[in-house]
Amino acid sequence: MPNVTFQPAGRTVEVAPGVTVLEAARRADVPIRNECGGHGVCGRCVVEIRRGEVERRPARHTPPAGKDLACRCVITGQDVEVFVPAESRQVETEVTIRQVEALPQAFPPAGAVVEKVSLQLAPPSLDDNLADAERLVRKLQKWREEDNYSISLRLLRDLPLELRHAEWNPEVILSVEPWGRRVLRAGPPRGRALCLAAVDVGTTTVKARLLAPGAHRVASCYNSQTMFGPDVISRIVHCQRDEEQGYADLQLRVVGDINRLLGELVRESGLERSDVWGVVVSGNTTMMHLLLGMYPIWIRREPYVGCAYLLPSVSPRDVGLKINPEGRIFCLPSVSSYVGADITAGVLATGLADREKPSALIDLGTNGEIVVGCRDFLVCCSASAGPAFEGGASASGSRALPGAIDSVCGGERVSWETIGGAAPVGICGTGYIDLLAVLLKEGIMDKTGKFAPGAPGVRRLDDDTLEYLFVSAEEAGRDDDIVLTQADVDNLIRAKGAIYAAGNVLLESLGMTWSDLEAIMLAGGFGERLNKDNAVTIGLLPDVPRERIEFVGNTSLAGALMAAQDATGYWRTREIARSMTYFELSTHPGFMDQFVSACFLPHTDPERFPTVTGAG
Amino acid sequence: MPNVTFQPAGRTVEVAPGVTVLEAARRADVPIRNECGGHGVCGRCVVEIRRGEVERRPARHTPPAGKDLACRCVITGQDVEVFVPAESRQVETEVTIRQVEALPQAFPPAGAVVEKVSLQLAPPSLDDNLADAERLVRKLQKWREEDNYSISLRLLRDLPLELRHAEWNPEVILSVEPWGRRVLRAGPPRGRALCLAAVDVGTTTVKARLLAPGAHRVASCYNSQTMFGPDVISRIVHCQRDEEQGYADLQLRVVGDINRLLGELVRESGLERSDVWGVVVSGNTTMMHLLLGMYPIWIRREPYVGCAYLLPSVSPRDVGLKINPEGRIFCLPSVSSYVGADITAGVLATGLADREKPSALIDLGTNGEIVVGCRDFLVCCSASAGPAFEGGASASGSRALPGAIDSVCGGERVSWETIGGAAPVGICGTGYIDLLAVLLKEGIMDKTGKFAPGAPGVRRLDDDTLEYLFVSAEEAGRDDDIVLTQADVDNLIRAKGAIYAAGNVLLESLGMTWSDLEAIMLAGGFGERLNKDNAVTIGLLPDVPRERIEFVGNTSLAGALMAAQDATGYWRTREIARSMTYFELSTHPGFMDQFVSACFLPHTDPERFPTVTGAG
Repeated sequence: MPNVTFQPAGRTVEVAPGVTVLEAARRADVPIRNECGGHGVCGRCVVEIRRGEVERRPARHTPPAGKDLACRCVITGQDVEVFVPAESRQVETEVTIRQVEALPQAFPPAGAVVEKVSLQLAPPSLDDNLADAERLVRKLQKWREEDNYSISLRLLRDLPLELRHAEWNPEVILSVEPWGRRVLRAGPPRGRALCLAAVDVGTTTVKARLLAPGAHRVASCYNSQTMFGPDVISRIVHCQRDEEQGYADLQLRVVGDINRLLGELVRESGLERSDVWGVVVSGNTTMMHLLLGMYPIWIRREPYVGCAYLLPSVSPRDVGLKINPEGRIFCLPSVSSYVGADITAGVLATGLADREKPSALIDLGTNGEIVVGCRDFLVCCSASAGPAFEGGASASGSRALPGAIDSVCGGERVSWETIGGAAPVGICGTGYIDLLAVLLKEGIMDKTGKFAPGAPGVRRLDDDTLEYLFVSAEEAGRDDDIVLTQADVDNLIRAKGAIYAAGNVLLESLGMTWSDLEAIMLAGGFGERLNKDNAVTIGLLPDVPRERIEFVGNTSLAGALMAAQDATGYWRTREIARSMTYFELSTHPGFMDQFVSACFLPHTDPERFPTVTGAG
Repeated sequence: MPNVTFQPAGRTVEVAPGVTVLEAARRADVPIRNECGGHGVCGRCVVEIRRGEVERRPARHTPPAGKDLACRCVITGQDVEVFVPAESRQVETEVTIRQVEALPQAFPPAGAVVEKVSLQLAPPSLDDNLADAERLVRKLQKWREEDNYSISLRLLRDLPLELRHAEWNPEVILSVEPWGRRVLRAGPPRGRALCLAAVDVGTTTVKARLLAPGAHRVASCYNSQTMFGPDVISRIVHCQRDEEQGYADLQLRVVGDINRLLGELVRESGLERSDVWGVVVSGNTTMMHLLLGMYPIWIRREPYVGCAYLLPSVSPRDVGLKINPEGRIFCLPSVSSYVGADITAGVLATGLADREKPSALIDLGTNGEIVVGCRDFLVCCSASAGPAFEGGASASGSRALPGAIDSVCGGERVSWETIGGAAPVGICGTGYIDLLAVLLKEGIMDKTGKFAPGAPGVRRLDDDTLEYLFVSAEEAGRDDDIVLTQADVDNLIRAKGAIYAAGNVLLESLGMTWSDLEAIMLAGGFGERLNKDNAVTIGLLPDVPRERIEFVGNTSLAGALMAAQDATGYWRTREIARSMTYFELSTHPGFMDQFVSACFLPHTDPERFPTVTGAG
């Protein structure tokens, strides 16, 4: 079988003919960017074939001269040497640490999903000769108003020795279960902190935070499943391609990411992995399936059902998580295949389900999910927005990395700012929102999203295709220009249209309008960088008084953190998930009309956006 | 290291100098009888050293000329060849199958600890898009008035495929848990019977019965832990001798026994091991510890506490039981270290705790346990009777095997019968009771148990020692005589005295006497062969109207069977265990006096036994 060598990594892998260079790179553990999932669309997997011949398949994206797209090059019988330039390398698996506010609580907080208690047991005597396990349980029953404790056989086997080593004053570690509490440990005091962790497994980014004395950092890294595709659908497709391996690929990647994040965090805090006894995980439904190794393929087939939404707590051994092996993993519940634990976590974190008056929570991640509700009701839906607002699949799209253009201003000349002030590497979500609004206001683009021929920056690629040159290669100090293509605009309009239409359908079903909402809470990575006016100008957000639009940040991680600290929050997410009504938009009679109407800037109905259009 | 070869097995083992021949035989898997636990007392481990020299340690029992006790021979530096005669071989690991009445129920019975149900699920649709696990649980919640079902992660992972293979009409197998039900399987119908099993792990004998269509056999075999000692104490000592290996020795032996019994039973019924999905196990506290691999050594140290009495259900994987690996093992609860699950099972099987008026349950096994109670109260205690009534440690003692003398009559000449009419091999429990009563009535033995010098059959061994020649070697067709030694009599009197005194103390603590009891139920292997009058004559049983004395058979197995068939019975054993008050006799102020008074035939107080003594 032919060998494929990757440079500058210097790694060689033997593959069967017919395998793409992209796939060979995966197997050689030299991950290459491929936001489109290897379909020749995103043009991110540019490589140079330096030796040997490959078969080239057609691509929608044309690579620079002398270069190739890894996903389009098929290995034949020959040995091949491939050079992977820096910009094509998937470097996102690096861990970023961000300082955040320290948590005020004592550790471990009382009432957390995993708790530690020091007990003083009466040693057994002839007058009080209960068995060791029952003696422990009797004391625990007095400690908390809780009757049901379970001790695994593994623990029971060592219990007599442990209790005697502890001289009947054991340190006991307990986790919560729907039916009571599980004893995770009972023995001599460890003399170490008991830590918990909260994890948010996003399709694009995995984030983790430790709950430990003095821990005030959030670690994040790109979800390394990304090498198998940018969105949940392409990852499920990867599972299907190879039932055994595809599945394992994805599970191992995300578990590896979490292990790396927790490893960094414990190291930074001077702790050990074995100090972590409980992890609360949030994420969308597909991510939860892949983390737990549950078969996800029916999530993408009508009628779109998952394996399980209310998940049992599991042992770290069962998923390969490197924390204390006697610890426990708690997965927050999903509502449906496309409204995941990240959303129930968000409802918990924002207190949406406790409000008196209805509000909305909009999560603009790789998908767009919307919840409308208050303490009396909760409805939700998912709009297949795609990764447009995360920089995926756009010609010059970028995630919110240093150098990503995240803010654009109009005026005589269109100006921009990048994250961290670095040299521009591409455009991220808030940048695209601003750019669309600016181009619309400046007349460079019309209400249907078509570029005005001859307008400043608009250039013609061929008879049918115009493109907006945003930052030239020269100005950016790069090999290629930063551009906005017509396809990018169409994608962005479809994404914003889907979200607005979804919210509309949800509200109409309740006999409500956007103005009836007390607040519209925006969750996701956008944060304060999002320009509310511009978001309303392009019709992504409704035209309501701007103070009602709130940025709530990463509510998925915040919800996981709340649940970890306080088990009542953990149980509350189950109530939230159970009580939320899911609206399936794909079959909703009104959705398609609403969507088509929303695929304008801001909307076909100007009266819906009076402050933008001057109508109404 | 020297080699030890055992003949006729032809097995050789290499051992370090200092190891006894008995221990070497264990390691060579050539088990040799040793009812005394290898202390040179029982004289069962007779072997012939045919080649090589060994070091001989002193023994209380003198072996026949030219022969040795395996437990007293220590390997030095030399290779040795040892011949093990047939009568010294531990052959009791063979499985005996006994026909019993078929159970009338349908299988699996509704309400059993493991149940099977065929469900018809509505396939998912866009209007009803619950996840697979929640869809299954929703249907289960309708099937039984039970809210809580748990599905393990292992099962969840395969659930989507299994439900679809079953075309949404899965066969579901469930087990009971304190908090609800555990789903053991959900998939296409297996097309096979679902069987349960009941197992009684006695110190001496392990018995099992299958609950399956047409299964009407009880399989039994000797507990092969016996090679490490005849009673629970010597087995615990074996654990202590070598913490790692001793422990494992015992666990592997008893699990092996159960596996063999179940193997025979499923084979006999044309079933497979994987058809067995639930096993309910009963046995004394030490046996339950050893079966589950829980460290038992504190059971024999004051204040005599076990690791756990209320036991969780466990996976067959955790104990090595060869049934369906997804099945479940239910261990019945103990009351204390010396009142085990066999007694709670007995209380369940006899309905003692449901009776209006107080009765007693006396279990004459290797230990003697007594329960007195009714629906209002339950008290119990354990009398260290020792294995006297099971033929252990007596000069000519035998278990209730074919050839064991189990019935003795007085008259001009003392006559006897053996089990199955076979040539006599020794004396079993009922035989000893009859023999003592006959010798007492015939004046061959006085009320203190001393032989009358010169009486028929009484012979003098030395100045201090008399012995009763019961059946001569010639008459028995054996190498040696069947005898009753003074030590045997003393043992038997201590055993019967302990049981009677224990019952008396229990009753006195309740302000009651034996006559207040509606029934005295005798559990154990004795069965109908026990002569009630003789048992009263020697003062083992109280002098009450004989119709109040009932034989209830093996109530440990019967209770396990009831619990398996009906989960309410299983839960009832927990209530029984919790509500039973345990009397620690070793520290009870009155016990020793009562015991001393009871070490006469029938008793120092003749008024307690009017029909025997003519007093009162």
